[in-house]
Amino acid sequence: MDYKHILNEIKPSKEESKEILKTSDKLITYLNEVCKDEGINACASLVGSVAKKTYLSGKSDIDIFISFPLDVDVLQLKETGLYLGYKCSDYFNGKASEHYASHPYVTSQINGFEVDFVPCYEIEDGSQLKSAVDRTILHTKYIKSHLKHNQNEEVLLLKRFMDMTGTYGSEFKVGGFAGYLCELLILKYETFENTLKEASKWRYGHTIDLEGYNTADLFNDPLIVIDPTDMNRNVGAALRLDKMAEFIQSARNYLASNNKKDYFFPVANKFTKDEILDEFQKRGSDVIAVKFNIPDIPLDTLHPQLRKTTESLAEKLNDEDFSVYQSDYWSDEENTAVLFFEMSVSRLNNTKIHYGPKVFVKKGSQNFINKHGIENCYILNDFVVSKIPREFITASDFINYVLTYENISLIKVGKNLLDNIIDSYELLSLDELDLNNESFVTFLDDFLNPNKYLFR
Amino acid sequence: MDYKHILNEIKPSKEESKEILKTSDKLITYLNEVCKDEGINACASLVGSVAKKTYLSGKSDIDIFISFPLDVDVLQLKETGLYLGYKCSDYFNGKASEHYASHPYVTSQINGFEVDFVPCYEIEDGSQLKSAVDRTILHTKYIKSHLKHNQNEEVLLLKRFMDMTGTYGSEFKVGGFAGYLCELLILKYETFENTLKEASKWRYGHTIDLEGYNTADLFNDPLIVIDPTDMNRNVGAALRLDKMAEFIQSARNYLASNNKKDYFFPVANKFTKDEILDEFQKRGSDVIAVKFNIPDIPLDTLHPQLRKTTESLAEKLNDEDFSVYQSDYWSDEENTAVLFFEMSVSRLNNTKIHYGPKVFVKKGSQNFINKHGIENCYILNDFVVSKIPREFITASDFINYVLTYENISLIKVGKNLLDNIIDSYELLSLDELDLNNESFVTFLDDFLNPNKYLFR
Repeated sequence: MDYKHILNEIKPSKEESKEILKTSDKLITYLNEVCKDEGINACASLVGSVAKKTYLSGKSDIDIFISFPLDVDVLQLKETGLYLGYKCSDYFNGKASEHYASHPYVTSQINGFEVDFVPCYEIEDGSQLKSAVDRTILHTKYIKSHLKHNQNEEVLLLKRFMDMTGTYGSEFKVGGFAGYLCELLILKYETFENTLKEASKWRYGHTIDLEGYNTADLFNDPLIVIDPTDMNRNVGAALRLDKMAEFIQSARNYLASNNKKDYFFPVANKFTKDEILDEFQKRGSDVIAVKFNIPDIPLDTLHPQLRKTTESLAEKLNDEDFSVYQSDYWSDEENTAVLFFEMSVSRLNNTKIHYGPKVFVKKGSQNFINKHGIENCYILNDFVVSKIPREFITASDFINYVLTYENISLIKVGKNLLDNIIDSYELLSLDELDLNNESFVTFLDDFLNPNKYLFR
Repeated sequence: MDYKHILNEIKPSKEESKEILKTSDKLITYLNEVCKDEGINACASLVGSVAKKTYLSGKSDIDIFISFPLDVDVLQLKETGLYLGYKCSDYFNGKASEHYASHPYVTSQINGFEVDFVPCYEIEDGSQLKSAVDRTILHTKYIKSHLKHNQNEEVLLLKRFMDMTGTYGSEFKVGGFAGYLCELLILKYETFENTLKEASKWRYGHTIDLEGYNTADLFNDPLIVIDPTDMNRNVGAALRLDKMAEFIQSARNYLASNNKKDYFFPVANKFTKDEILDEFQKRGSDVIAVKFNIPDIPLDTLHPQLRKTTESLAEKLNDEDFSVYQSDYWSDEENTAVLFFEMSVSRLNNTKIHYGPKVFVKKGSQNFINKHGIENCYILNDFVVSKIPREFITASDFINYVLTYENISLIKVGKNLLDNIIDSYELLSLDELDLNNESFVTFLDDFLNPNKYLFR
């Protein structure tokens, strides 16, 4: 396999690198001068994939961390961090906005780059941790000092491969591999190709412990990669089981493939809009889409809540004797979300059997019969049962019942979604879906082709 | 409760008793004279409910057993038994036919009575048993000698109650209480009413051991009634769990009822023909009836095979993701049977997920993918799965597939039914059912009203 060819496409050009480092240097220099001039005891430094030279071409966010001594009050840290971020952004004519991870931080568009100014504490090791972002500097240092010459190229290949096979990114929307996790895998397995070979043999609970801490027993996760900068942390903790499994399968598919190159480039949709509708109809599947307005909350809050809501509603539909063939959700991450259910069974007869106790439990049987009326009760094997009207004949009936303040507690809804979903939801059928929204069309295409990213 | 009134209706009148005993005596006297005249070493005697005075008015079959010494060859016993049966029938201008229990025997219509002539061995206790019918004489003797004065009336009440609540009769069609079992219950509990009181407290595995044999551990049945004439036999072995449960519930309903008298009389159908069709439609249930010709086999063979076939087909329908709400069978016991399925779900979408191994099982995953084609396989949680076309979209499709010589082994079909069902079955929908057949209409009415016999 000619990886040079791939790297030509995905590795930043000399010009791109130069440009980004020039910008980074200017910003850091400026920030450190401001600190000096204004007597602020803090130090700006470049972290993240730019610092580690493990960023993909065109995907270079500049991460500047402003570290404060451990004895600085957290309120002062936040305030001063924001102050410095805004000041620097203004000075370089950036367009700033405020975000929130564990502290608030400033993001700004400067010189065509997205720059994050993140305040943190200056720590020596994981035990001193005051907030989750603090370890970023340790991670950057560890990777910079351990990644061998040209191994950053192996990281780039791995990141790109994961990105194109749908397993890259630790944000909750994906639940895949973090950049730092990719880098640790290359430290462990040395090359991209060897990483894939080894990953194709992983079992549940596979453990990587670069520093020999022997702390794997602390974790019960599908993949355990002990953080070299913190023996009590599993870098793989956020990796979802399905994403680990997809990476393993993609790796196997890649190793056996004759189209290896294609694994590094995007996959087109399999179906046109019309074909998508045809496909659902061909399958004879009833489709239910629950569309509603989303609240303004961080994406890492939004996505788990959408996922949880979808899964809980699917589970309850199955409990009610409907049968969900597949479910997933989509969101534009700004205004709208759609919980999407493809049904094997969406309509039932309207009577059902409600099981009571065994007839041998005399008191219990009597209570059951008193409750349901002797005229509705009979014996099935040795159970007292009652024929009761089904409350919900169609899956839509059930969803309409649940999505009310009275009954919403039947499912687990993300708490930030609760009001929005009840107040704004509407049920859409197949022909009411908005197929002019490209992102939604891709979602439907992914839904219908769940292996689309796994092999070429 | 005025049981006298009930007994007036169900107990044979003096005239009926006299008539039946007169006929019995004549037959037995004749048979024993023939034996004497022809040097046949055998002895005819009256057995069964007539001998025990526990038969219900109008339901008096005369059971005459012809017992041979234990050293008589079984072929000779069969031959001589038939000879004597036919001879006696002819002498009294009966209309004879041959039947088969454990030996062949002759049944004849004589004087308006149905008379069975059954050859058996003369045994002293269960250990000498050569065939299942041999113990009948022992049972008759035991009951005659143990049933107290007027306790036969308690037996009559119990039999009638069970008959009217659907739990009387040990033939396989019913799976309920044998006459002998009723008699033993009265020996144990003394009165009809006390039997119901005690039965309403029975638990699974309740044991009655009149002779104190302490052999209950030999049995694992819902009701254990050790045969006083054979410590190794459970008289309750043929009682199905559901029939025991129904008896317990009927007993409780009766004891709490203000309409006790009604429990001793037949229940009318709840629905007219039209209402039956309406009811299925109201329920929104799809109905599938599998009608076919039955072979000429004993009813105690036919019914278990029909039951087994119905249950197995229902189970397989559920396995295929259809949902059977209720199933049962009907037969006219001469020409036709109908396996009857009321469906909650009879139609599915046409694709399904076929689970392979977990992705961590490398070799197994690879085999699965090779078999199903990489283009059909994807990851669900940590499983490799394949989307496969559903073979059967409707429950009828599946039944048509199974009821062929190629595929019949997918279900458990009674072996005597196999050819008939494959060669002659047809699937009927609701509007094709024969509602001019009274017995079938009652079956449908029972099916729709499964508690109809349990309470008044």
